[in-house]
Amino acid sequence: MVKVNENYSKLKAGYLFPEISKRVNQHSQKPGATNLIKLGIGDVTEPLPNACVEAMQKALQEMSTQQGFKGYGPEQGYIWLREKIAENEFISKGCQINAEEIFVSDGSKCDSSNILDILGDDNLIAVTDPVYPVYVDSNVMSGRTGFAQENGSYEGLTYIPINEDNDFKPQIPQKRVDIIYLCFPNNPTGATITRDELQEWVDYANRNNSLIFYDAAYEAFIQDQKTPHSIYEIKGAKDCAIEFRSFSKNAGFTGVRCAYTVIPKKLTGKNSKGEEVNIWSLWNRRQSTKFNGVSYIVQRGAEAVYSTQGKREVQRLIDFYMNNALIMRTKLTEAGFKVFGGLNAPYIWIKVPDGMSSWDFFDYLLKKANVVGTPGSGFGLAGEGYFRLSAFNSLSNVNDAMERIIHI
Amino acid sequence: MVKVNENYSKLKAGYLFPEISKRVNQHSQKPGATNLIKLGIGDVTEPLPNACVEAMQKALQEMSTQQGFKGYGPEQGYIWLREKIAENEFISKGCQINAEEIFVSDGSKCDSSNILDILGDDNLIAVTDPVYPVYVDSNVMSGRTGFAQENGSYEGLTYIPINEDNDFKPQIPQKRVDIIYLCFPNNPTGATITRDELQEWVDYANRNNSLIFYDAAYEAFIQDQKTPHSIYEIKGAKDCAIEFRSFSKNAGFTGVRCAYTVIPKKLTGKNSKGEEVNIWSLWNRRQSTKFNGVSYIVQRGAEAVYSTQGKREVQRLIDFYMNNALIMRTKLTEAGFKVFGGLNAPYIWIKVPDGMSSWDFFDYLLKKANVVGTPGSGFGLAGEGYFRLSAFNSLSNVNDAMERIIHI
Repeated sequence: MVKVNENYSKLKAGYLFPEISKRVNQHSQKPGATNLIKLGIGDVTEPLPNACVEAMQKALQEMSTQQGFKGYGPEQGYIWLREKIAENEFISKGCQINAEEIFVSDGSKCDSSNILDILGDDNLIAVTDPVYPVYVDSNVMSGRTGFAQENGSYEGLTYIPINEDNDFKPQIPQKRVDIIYLCFPNNPTGATITRDELQEWVDYANRNNSLIFYDAAYEAFIQDQKTPHSIYEIKGAKDCAIEFRSFSKNAGFTGVRCAYTVIPKKLTGKNSKGEEVNIWSLWNRRQSTKFNGVSYIVQRGAEAVYSTQGKREVQRLIDFYMNNALIMRTKLTEAGFKVFGGLNAPYIWIKVPDGMSSWDFFDYLLKKANVVGTPGSGFGLAGEGYFRLSAFNSLSNVNDAMERIIHI
Repeated sequence: MVKVNENYSKLKAGYLFPEISKRVNQHSQKPGATNLIKLGIGDVTEPLPNACVEAMQKALQEMSTQQGFKGYGPEQGYIWLREKIAENEFISKGCQINAEEIFVSDGSKCDSSNILDILGDDNLIAVTDPVYPVYVDSNVMSGRTGFAQENGSYEGLTYIPINEDNDFKPQIPQKRVDIIYLCFPNNPTGATITRDELQEWVDYANRNNSLIFYDAAYEAFIQDQKTPHSIYEIKGAKDCAIEFRSFSKNAGFTGVRCAYTVIPKKLTGKNSKGEEVNIWSLWNRRQSTKFNGVSYIVQRGAEAVYSTQGKREVQRLIDFYMNNALIMRTKLTEAGFKVFGGLNAPYIWIKVPDGMSSWDFFDYLLKKANVVGTPGSGFGLAGEGYFRLSAFNSLSNVNDAMERIIHI
């Protein structure tokens, strides 16, 4: 008799985005529910950079010729792309990360969940709260948690609240943990971390032989000078951190699919005998065995992000979305909301009005303004009382949405 | 202290393809080592079908416009592709598989290893021997085996030999197993299975509540009428089988990346209480949480495989490679080799001359003919004494390689 992985039964049934879809669909059938503006899911809306499109067209052309055809590529990604990433994202910014330490993949969602494959089941895991649900769910599915408690949190996970009370700064946990997920600029709160604050985490990890999973998917949206773009700007990070990066949000690749993970070559974990084991080698083996590389065409598109034209076009996209964020911050503040985020991230995190829950506010905005956002409680217990709006939309939709919210 | 997954240390160090690369590199540096012809890795060499290239170019064009831009797609694949697959690969061939039962992915290597995520660690696993190494290694990495024994096989796995002694027909194991990997047309032996033979496996699985992983990546190469293209041609298969399919070998997508997995909606496993759990739902949850769908551009390319032009071009590719296979069979037989496979699969499986091991023959062909193949022992214990040659190459390379082998 074939046995299933029973950890899946621990997952909470009401997953965030399906629940949102359900409520939106119900609402859409009512009279007056017109011109719904969706500021819920963090998905880009602007066309791909021309530089990327042209590079992919050229790659397709190659693939249609005998000389230019490419079959299987390296599972780790083509070296020309890994070198471009190393140079542009790290070396030119003072981080000593080389091409071999970069593993190209088809998405950060895959990487940040697959990474658990190479680590022991008995690691103690910490996540911030609120949090990107994939970090939690991938731990539940792989048996690294107990059951969901009544309040929705999972036994065995350490939750580090980030909210108004601590100025959205994650506090080092009292109890030692082995693995910590940090995402900055933060999804969903839009909060940032300074170099000094991140240094504390790196020091903690090195003192405790812990591992930091640093999700920097939104680093391109950073506007100020004090927020690090990469954890490798921090001294000691190459001894304790894996970084996840993506082309999804900067170059608009959510539908194209390309991301990468940085694993420093000297990063180690321990086996049960206390011997050091190289983590780069484990991931290299994992990817070689369970993955077959990213489409050649897509990798050529990603490479073009680093051309002069590509950089200019990506910057234009970032500016565009950050202008949306600014409009949203300004208008919502004017309307009397307490607003966080949106300064170095494409997410606005609103404090919902007193006496309302996150879901109450969701229903309220949906009914009164035909605007869809994401209830903060969907990202965890400490997200209750907050609400996420995404700056990924057209300027006119953003303006319309703000007008509607103001005039409810 | 962060703990690693110690199962990785059980993996044999000398993985097949790196070892081949090493020997080829060493040989290449010698004088006289010119015009090496590689018939080793099963990678296609002919350009992409024009229908696919054109469809992808059109998709790229869409992605560069505001109206046509696509962000995140469904994790399971776009419904228009899933419907085309269901209609062309299954329904039109009498298999009642619907679009919802098809999960589009970026590769069969990923699917056939990721599938273990949703199944219990305590299932008894059977593989054929020789076997595609990914089936074994993904089980080792996830802790479903013991250590490698001296002969290279892993404790805890059931090996089902397929070789000359049993006419390359896998025999039902004496000991009950929970999961069986079957790959037909077979990689590496090129062997096939008839409908009656496959019916025995399906009946066995249904009697024992076992699950069959059916890898049909090479079904497009089937030339005769008696070999099933899908396990769902077999009565009862929807109660016990998952099928893996790919666009890699028929449409030449090894560098483009698109595949799919079929999970019938009524397929179930058991939990530890003996209750039935739906496997489709588990995979749907796994893919939704740990995967973000295949590139929109690539999915449009895959869809074009089913256009009139696409079908014609794919058929031409299949005919081309199968003509190579025929030449290889004929010439090698003339040269006195005992040859298997190559009739319904792009692989020729040669019995190596008496007194030689698979690796001896590898070195012999490399040195004497500058031809690279794959030693059968690399695929498992029962592959010893055999050698794989792939029909994926240009006609002139295939002809040259055969001339060289004949005239050693």
